[in-house]
Amino acid sequence: MADAVKDELAAIETTVVSYLAAFNRGDVDAVLATYADDGVLMGPGNPAAVGKSTLAQAYPGIFEAASFDMDYEIKEAVQIGAEWGFVRTATEGTVTNKASGIAAHATFHELFLLRKSAEGAWQIARYSTSKIS
Amino acid sequence: MADAVKDELAAIETTVVSYLAAFNRGDVDAVLATYADDGVLMGPGNPAAVGKSTLAQAYPGIFEAASFDMDYEIKEAVQIGAEWGFVRTATEGTVTNKASGIAAHATFHELFLLRKSAEGAWQIARYSTSKIS
Repeated sequence: MADAVKDELAAIETTVVSYLAAFNRGDVDAVLATYADDGVLMGPGNPAAVGKSTLAQAYPGIFEAASFDMDYEIKEAVQIGAEWGFVRTATEGTVTNKASGIAAHATFHELFLLRKSAEGAWQIARYSTSKIS
Repeated sequence: MADAVKDELAAIETTVVSYLAAFNRGDVDAVLATYADDGVLMGPGNPAAVGKSTLAQAYPGIFEAASFDMDYEIKEAVQIGAEWGFVRTATEGTVTNKASGIAAHATFHELFLLRKSAEGAWQIARYSTSKIS
């Protein structure tokens, strides 16, 4: 691949890895920083959170309910235009219910659709995740 | 919008509606017809099904386990290039466990990433869905 294409793919992956690392830390600000202003989260158990102000309300609830210690695997990362790309991942690790203290092994998979901002930052535009087990 | 853009968006939506209708009927062949050869399903409870031959094994199991009577709402449909688009939907209805006969109200949301084939057909390239309630 040409270096420019490799650089874009690396930047796309970096955003996703930043998101997953911030999620593991329960770091709301760092999670939000990976999203576009119109970003959408679609996860299990809650309606879609549409736009950064709604995301800013959704993630604290997620992190108050549970802590996450997840390893990730990038299954594929694809640039599909000058301004769009997607990444498919699988995550596996431990989810600890903060109320009960009970820790459980869990696996998920994730589909990230990313868009390059006017400033050149790859940001999460749409994100859907579901629990495998 | 220019007519050509409207036509593409209509075609993108038609593929998604065809998928959702086929899913409601439990029609494996019609479901598979909406997917690209390298299409991927990411849903709750199972690892990602990657590629049409794996999809052809996954859907019969889904339809043997349950029947679905779901209404859909298209939340957005966006073309993001000559060959790519995405659709975000929400579905709500009744899922009936075929073994137990128990019917339950359920809500899901769905993110479809579609690609236009060389023959001009909009096909599901990647699809992620999770259960809200």
